[in-house]
Amino acid sequence: MDLWFNERETDNIRVQWKVVRHLYSSVSKFQRIDVVDLAEFGRTLVLDGIIQTTYTDEFIYHEMLAHVPLVSIPEPRRVLVIGGGDGGTVRQVLKHPVERVDLVEIDGEVIRVSKEFLPRLASALNDPRVCIHVEDAIEYVKSCPEKYDCVLVDSSDPVGPAVGLFSGEFFRNIAGILSTDGILAAQTESPLFNKALIKGVFTQLKGVFPQTSFYWCNVPSYSIGPWSFVLAKKTDSPRVALRNPEHCRYYTEEIYQAAFTLPGYFKALFKE
Amino acid sequence: MDLWFNERETDNIRVQWKVVRHLYSSVSKFQRIDVVDLAEFGRTLVLDGIIQTTYTDEFIYHEMLAHVPLVSIPEPRRVLVIGGGDGGTVRQVLKHPVERVDLVEIDGEVIRVSKEFLPRLASALNDPRVCIHVEDAIEYVKSCPEKYDCVLVDSSDPVGPAVGLFSGEFFRNIAGILSTDGILAAQTESPLFNKALIKGVFTQLKGVFPQTSFYWCNVPSYSIGPWSFVLAKKTDSPRVALRNPEHCRYYTEEIYQAAFTLPGYFKALFKE
Repeated sequence: MDLWFNERETDNIRVQWKVVRHLYSSVSKFQRIDVVDLAEFGRTLVLDGIIQTTYTDEFIYHEMLAHVPLVSIPEPRRVLVIGGGDGGTVRQVLKHPVERVDLVEIDGEVIRVSKEFLPRLASALNDPRVCIHVEDAIEYVKSCPEKYDCVLVDSSDPVGPAVGLFSGEFFRNIAGILSTDGILAAQTESPLFNKALIKGVFTQLKGVFPQTSFYWCNVPSYSIGPWSFVLAKKTDSPRVALRNPEHCRYYTEEIYQAAFTLPGYFKALFKE
Repeated sequence: MDLWFNERETDNIRVQWKVVRHLYSSVSKFQRIDVVDLAEFGRTLVLDGIIQTTYTDEFIYHEMLAHVPLVSIPEPRRVLVIGGGDGGTVRQVLKHPVERVDLVEIDGEVIRVSKEFLPRLASALNDPRVCIHVEDAIEYVKSCPEKYDCVLVDSSDPVGPAVGLFSGEFFRNIAGILSTDGILAAQTESPLFNKALIKGVFTQLKGVFPQTSFYWCNVPSYSIGPWSFVLAKKTDSPRVALRNPEHCRYYTEEIYQAAFTLPGYFKALFKE
């Protein structure tokens, strides 16, 4: 059977991916969850019809979301990951000598399905340093008594359950649960198709954190164009080297600097 | 009418672009030529069903192909552009104080169609410093009596008329028509889907030029993933600053360095 998955990128762009096998489909309390084997990208998690992560290129997004902030402060010990029920971000975090990782994922079904179909990523969630909280991160950060050295927001697109993960109140609450030298990183979508979101996040974070900067990479399965992240710091703490860079396939010591070097059209977003 | 252009990326990936208007279609001696207005990317040149350049993001590819080599040598005066009948590369070259630009394009129809439908790019071809040669660049570089400071290979994908533009013999002939400090830059496709081509180009150039390095950027309309270029130098000439960087929308002084900083998986191509 000639099976293709049609993904909507914008109103005017669709990508069609050849499917080797449709492995799983269900509708959870929050979203539709699918797992497919894509001919070009392998095992792939799809939420509400949008690719979240693929076995072939997940390393790019997850290395950049985790390592850039975690080498930006001296000794991150306690890390909070928001979203990311597939386990890919936690897996990279565990390459650092952290003591504890809390994962707050709203949809327990994403975790269960990832453990079954994406074990290469989700097996990280079985690490004894990981504590899973199946609840709404918006509520979690309001009342959490813990302090974290690093918070990573690994959200899906800003529709459905993830809308509140880009708001000023959410960022202020995160600042409240960060340690003195704490750091926040979040995925912030495409600088081409989500300009208003990026400008909004910049404005919100500027009011909360003394230092806010964007960085970027290219995640091929997030098809049209580059992908962006934001890093927000409470203090000007020194950067450290990654302990085992040989375990990375995208991140290098040099990529750290290069990723913060934005092209003209991206920098221009902050001047408009 | 709900009109969509289906573009084949690989055997397993297709991109569908909403078309506002199909403006032109013909078959030249070498290829099918189409011009469409894409809802998301504006006026677009399509050759044999593959997007070549769009009004919305052409600046990224053309700035990076032209400015990176042209600031890598002190005083480029004579420039040869191979392919690039749309005029986009020549337009960027003319931002430098060059004396003469030779454009060698095999398909005169591409030039004619671009002048009619892509005037923002192709009007550069009317500049008095530009000399157009409608002929096969493979033959041109064999017997050309001129010497150039800079040769830019702005080819289409390595199928059809462009196949020979990635061969060792072609690069050797280019080396022969470069001045003592001369420099070559060429587009070298995607580091994800054209690994063998990139490795082949690297091997060929290493045998001809003392210094060969790759750089990259992201061209959104070249849909899945990043785009690469190669720079090959005859001598270790000093880099200069671009005179009017404010005229660029992608290139900046900092991007120069960042573009040569390749992620792990790209660097690994040269170790395999």
